[in-house]
Amino acid sequence: MTTYGTITRQVIDELTAIVGPRNLIRDEEKMQPYAHDETPEEQYSHMPGVVVTPTDAQQVAAIVKLAVKYLIPVTPRGAGSGLSGGAIPVYGGILLSLEKMNRVVEIDYANMMIVVEPGLVTNEINALVADQGLFFAGYPMSLESCFVGGNIAENAGGGKAVKYGVTGQYIMGLELVTPEGEIVTLGGKNVKDVTGYDLKRLIIGSEGTLGIVTQATIKLSPLPKYKSDLLVLFEDVAGAIDAVPVIFSKGGITPTSIEFMDKLSVHTACAYLNEHLPYQQAGAMLLIEVDGSDQEQVDLDAERIGELLMTHGAIEVYVADNHTTQERVWSVRRNIAEAFKVYSPHQSLEDIVVPIAAIPALMPLVDAISKKYNIAMPTYGHAGDGNLHTTLVKNPESTMDEWYAVEEQAVNELYDAVRSLGGKISGEHGIGLKRKPFMQRLTDPVELKLMRAVKRAFDPHNIMNPGKLFDVEEQA
Amino acid sequence: MTTYGTITRQVIDELTAIVGPRNLIRDEEKMQPYAHDETPEEQYSHMPGVVVTPTDAQQVAAIVKLAVKYLIPVTPRGAGSGLSGGAIPVYGGILLSLEKMNRVVEIDYANMMIVVEPGLVTNEINALVADQGLFFAGYPMSLESCFVGGNIAENAGGGKAVKYGVTGQYIMGLELVTPEGEIVTLGGKNVKDVTGYDLKRLIIGSEGTLGIVTQATIKLSPLPKYKSDLLVLFEDVAGAIDAVPVIFSKGGITPTSIEFMDKLSVHTACAYLNEHLPYQQAGAMLLIEVDGSDQEQVDLDAERIGELLMTHGAIEVYVADNHTTQERVWSVRRNIAEAFKVYSPHQSLEDIVVPIAAIPALMPLVDAISKKYNIAMPTYGHAGDGNLHTTLVKNPESTMDEWYAVEEQAVNELYDAVRSLGGKISGEHGIGLKRKPFMQRLTDPVELKLMRAVKRAFDPHNIMNPGKLFDVEEQA
Repeated sequence: MTTYGTITRQVIDELTAIVGPRNLIRDEEKMQPYAHDETPEEQYSHMPGVVVTPTDAQQVAAIVKLAVKYLIPVTPRGAGSGLSGGAIPVYGGILLSLEKMNRVVEIDYANMMIVVEPGLVTNEINALVADQGLFFAGYPMSLESCFVGGNIAENAGGGKAVKYGVTGQYIMGLELVTPEGEIVTLGGKNVKDVTGYDLKRLIIGSEGTLGIVTQATIKLSPLPKYKSDLLVLFEDVAGAIDAVPVIFSKGGITPTSIEFMDKLSVHTACAYLNEHLPYQQAGAMLLIEVDGSDQEQVDLDAERIGELLMTHGAIEVYVADNHTTQERVWSVRRNIAEAFKVYSPHQSLEDIVVPIAAIPALMPLVDAISKKYNIAMPTYGHAGDGNLHTTLVKNPESTMDEWYAVEEQAVNELYDAVRSLGGKISGEHGIGLKRKPFMQRLTDPVELKLMRAVKRAFDPHNIMNPGKLFDVEEQA
Repeated sequence: MTTYGTITRQVIDELTAIVGPRNLIRDEEKMQPYAHDETPEEQYSHMPGVVVTPTDAQQVAAIVKLAVKYLIPVTPRGAGSGLSGGAIPVYGGILLSLEKMNRVVEIDYANMMIVVEPGLVTNEINALVADQGLFFAGYPMSLESCFVGGNIAENAGGGKAVKYGVTGQYIMGLELVTPEGEIVTLGGKNVKDVTGYDLKRLIIGSEGTLGIVTQATIKLSPLPKYKSDLLVLFEDVAGAIDAVPVIFSKGGITPTSIEFMDKLSVHTACAYLNEHLPYQQAGAMLLIEVDGSDQEQVDLDAERIGELLMTHGAIEVYVADNHTTQERVWSVRRNIAEAFKVYSPHQSLEDIVVPIAAIPALMPLVDAISKKYNIAMPTYGHAGDGNLHTTLVKNPESTMDEWYAVEEQAVNELYDAVRSLGGKISGEHGIGLKRKPFMQRLTDPVELKLMRAVKRAFDPHNIMNPGKLFDVEEQA
């Protein structure tokens, strides 16, 4: 393992010279919020040695060069809304928060692109360009709190990914500070580009381990004028999940969203929100959105999906075609994760993904694991992408030691089940700290070897967000 | 520079043991077709030491391991239809042709994916799945002759990229033989996946320098039921090009294609095809396609574009709404490159790309270079992507020495013009051998350093398609 340098007086003085005293935090209490992200469980908490909040790419580059000189780990951080511990300074060192780099650099309507800094809250893009009939189609569910930089680091997906894809599809260009402290621009505003390796795509989803994004050029899309939401009730989980592939195969329609919620998820979120959906006692639901530029087509698609599902196991179809009702049902869906954190601090929020046609086969396997270990495993998520947030929740009667033992075994079995169906352990939350041991176990040694080689190629000193994804030193 | 081993008797014996005598070619005459691709000019021709045509991934892996052992360069080759010299064995050695690996491994209708080997002719995918109402939306213009493997190596774009994007967007998974001869699967059938670095995207467009693709999982899309083509005539190049961004900005429509052809391009292709478009004397044309699942919407979009362009400089709009007429106009567009090769063997077919809003600013710069060097520079291509195939053609009166001198200077000036507009030197044909010197000159040294580091990480022995993209040894 790399032996890192410590945060000496000298380091602090040099950091202060770079960012100024107002952009450096050493006070323990003020550093506390930077010690964790939104991943449940205290084990994923580590205090940084120092927090810096640079205000431009030159400062970021100077910090990284200093880190190379003293061999100090640098952990980049966005909003801290991550769910895999990616922004946690596991080896202490420098926590580099991008919160003050939140400018909009340019709105280029002619090319339908926006250039922003990584600390911008994602939804601000949509707020800025909505009046021009545009939006950033790759945004994740947490768009009201997350930062653009975090979306890029995780290649975040969202509720509209079924139709629009995820973050990476909309990132045209990046300004990156490399792990050696050099500033480079990758990509740009060209819609096609094969001028050398696609390093931009390599950076997207690399969880801050290959450098720090200091600017992003994002493609905007025409905001669909009309949408319609269907809340489709099923007696049980199997019924709802079995219906998902039918929408594509028999319906021939690609909805904007196909979200799945089991009874426990709906119930927990409704309790948390003090919301009273009249239909929260159904065994499972699909929340389906269709959108488009033509009201008639949108209504037709919604109608066809509703009819199709009524002949494929649905017990009722509610249409939410006005903003208030749409907001109510989506609010339930968006608040499930938050509600479960209140419900139980001891849990593991998973992010498994399987090929769409394999999700009916997955659910009985999840059920078997839940029964075997006697733990609740509520499940919700982006069924239309095959990406489900199955959550393992501690049985109130078990001790913490029992819980940790059971959790690890149950997660391992879940991952094996996912792998047996051609799936992967993370669809949008990332590996980070939380899934690193599983990544090591489940990844083809050749693939892991290539990833390690790429990491070393970018970060020969292993200072950039070390301890995430995989251990560099370990040889397969 | 790496000093490579030679093709000794021993090497031939071991290669024969791997692929069998029927899959090894040493006869000079039979190796001749493998010495070049479709790049004009003889300077891009190099004879291989030996040609092998393996029939499965295990054979490919064994060949690469042998190449590592004897330090022999391996040049992977698809259909040889490339336009940048990417498949030319510039250092001799082993030419590894994938022509016999052309199986369809699986058609997975439930997931709307097809799994194929790299030697399959791209259009065969469309032929196979058309009756299920599906197609591979990322296909390039040369789909009737190119191989899937080549499409992936170049991240090829096509005539439908404006709406559907390029090859890379549809490649879900790859089986790769690494430059160390190991077999690894990257990606799969999951529509979301953030389980580690996106090595699959790094391979796409890497021009066979990071390994050999031996299998690809490709996303299929619903084949649009209806389409309409508009041939829009303009008095001159500036008029046609100025109209392109208007379709997006004022029209709010994303057509399937916006192809541009200047007068010389149309004329040359018509002469080559013995085709007589009544309107080939217009100064420039746009060929615009719209498609969709709804006939009325398609007609409406076509009509709106036609009306819009008539108020933005068009002198006439022809609608090609039946298959025969559509085939005629598209055939003219598809055959321009071939026609120019017959017209003049001494030329440089370029592949420049600029942000869409910048193409009106580009054309006067192209015109100035053409005048300065007294060479014809016919231009055609994917105007809707900002990707133009400006072609520099030798003046019949100049000597070959004069032509090569002028060509290099004119190309350099063209690339500088492109760069001044935020563009890149290749949108879909790749760097290969042809653009390597320009790549070195025009790429940010930091970006080039990262690309070299990635190359070394994958290919420590520098045996995989060496001499393409950039020189590994050269330090920026």
